[in-house]
Amino acid sequence: MDLRVATPATVPNELRASEVYFGWRFAPTWLSLAPSLRWIASPAAGTDHLPVRQAHQAGVMLTRSYGFHGRPMSEHAMGLVLGFSRGLFTSSRLQLTRRWWKDELAAEFFDLAGATMTIVGCGSVGAHLARAAGAFRMNVIGVRRTPPADAEGGIRWVRASSIRGAVAKADVVVGLLPATAETAGFFDQRVFNSCKPGAIFINLGRASTVDHTALLQALEDGPLGGAALDVTTPRPLPMEDALRLHPRVILTPKSATFSRSYMDEAIAFFADNLRRYLNDLPLHGLATPPREG
Amino acid sequence: MDLRVATPATVPNELRASEVYFGWRFAPTWLSLAPSLRWIASPAAGTDHLPVRQAHQAGVMLTRSYGFHGRPMSEHAMGLVLGFSRGLFTSSRLQLTRRWWKDELAAEFFDLAGATMTIVGCGSVGAHLARAAGAFRMNVIGVRRTPPADAEGGIRWVRASSIRGAVAKADVVVGLLPATAETAGFFDQRVFNSCKPGAIFINLGRASTVDHTALLQALEDGPLGGAALDVTTPRPLPMEDALRLHPRVILTPKSATFSRSYMDEAIAFFADNLRRYLNDLPLHGLATPPREG
Repeated sequence: MDLRVATPATVPNELRASEVYFGWRFAPTWLSLAPSLRWIASPAAGTDHLPVRQAHQAGVMLTRSYGFHGRPMSEHAMGLVLGFSRGLFTSSRLQLTRRWWKDELAAEFFDLAGATMTIVGCGSVGAHLARAAGAFRMNVIGVRRTPPADAEGGIRWVRASSIRGAVAKADVVVGLLPATAETAGFFDQRVFNSCKPGAIFINLGRASTVDHTALLQALEDGPLGGAALDVTTPRPLPMEDALRLHPRVILTPKSATFSRSYMDEAIAFFADNLRRYLNDLPLHGLATPPREG
Repeated sequence: MDLRVATPATVPNELRASEVYFGWRFAPTWLSLAPSLRWIASPAAGTDHLPVRQAHQAGVMLTRSYGFHGRPMSEHAMGLVLGFSRGLFTSSRLQLTRRWWKDELAAEFFDLAGATMTIVGCGSVGAHLARAAGAFRMNVIGVRRTPPADAEGGIRWVRASSIRGAVAKADVVVGLLPATAETAGFFDQRVFNSCKPGAIFINLGRASTVDHTALLQALEDGPLGGAALDVTTPRPLPMEDALRLHPRVILTPKSATFSRSYMDEAIAFFADNLRRYLNDLPLHGLATPPREG
């Protein structure tokens, strides 16, 4: 094998003779520069930023990575949950302006033990998060388009079509949905208004799944006690955006998957897939273009 | 039994005929008003706010409560740890003033998996916290004056006399020390300057165990990456106090033990002890006055 390391500037040239590409980005125009290309491998979990349809039409395989996002994303999600449940975000702000705020915290905090987390789009990341929540004795409801047949790790499964009932029971709702035509605006006014009073909404899925106007309304006049967004549209939000300025909203800069071992694990995943490729075995994480209509 | 519910105003009068007292506070002057008193029971874990010596001299037993602080304190501590490790406190502040701060977070975040937590004063609360940290695959070092003979739940034990070596290995140092003559100012310049660069210090023990001047110096010119204090002297800190205003310090208003089930569990502990009292069995949580000199 001939391994070439390319910079963004040299990628188009290197692609002329390449059969396999590994990298975060792949411009649709690059496909026409790469007559020998057979496989685009991404270290990312999602593929919505990649030319899935064009690659498919050109007969080029495209793979995502998975299996190692669960740990950092669970740390991130549990940090956000506890930041709200223990009043830490409130404290961090009030310490600058208020002498003492124990009564406010006594009113707003909640115990994780016995509380319910509803995970929407509960796949392998969700299963990892469910274990972390279970370590704090939370009850977990998992929402999927098609729940698995066999019960798994103490998760109570609910169909996506019953989302309103599933969020109505939750002290914390975590969104982990991918960006597809079906999930666009999934978290809308109807879903938010079905939430329990004081519930916390956390989105670590894709930005397109959340209706910002409905979220803001649910925080201002509806049931939500707080929200955390790791992704937004646009990114970043304007400085004067009402969600950015909201005292019960935490924004993180697409950092939920931050891990010092991320690239080591992504490369291990790729190396394993490369062995499969060289042995003509089916690849892991193959992305297929969305069905038409 | 005759059960009387007293308000702060009616306590002195009710105490005239009482044999047992259950409550948060007990003024030293109340002892002389209570000729029949044999036992003061507190729902608190610590006894430094109670007249332990005077009660002992008057032949009145005094008990603390334990066994149910571990769960809320572990939630609180892990929330603080993750708030720092995932850059959530930084994000919560920067979202108001900065368009985007992903690079800052990429520099400061750390993975809990494989990181080390050193718990100083590692008793029953510490053992609970060690399990919570272990669920995130952290390594745990437990520091005690006298470590237990048998290893327990994956904790590596270190004597308090070797504190500098124990904090040098830690990404997170959690203080859970009680207030005694021995622990006053335990966390001093010597201890803080032995910490690893970027380490986080969290105190959920007593305020008297932390030298604030040394802590501030370790944050400004020394190794500490951040600190969280649930207790301070004075309480609250003045509005202009440098620790209160420090961008890498989080203060919480003595809320680490907050739990909706606290009083239920404290009363269950008391009820069990009351059964022991009525049957002339030794009480749980009996406080003894500190040795002289």
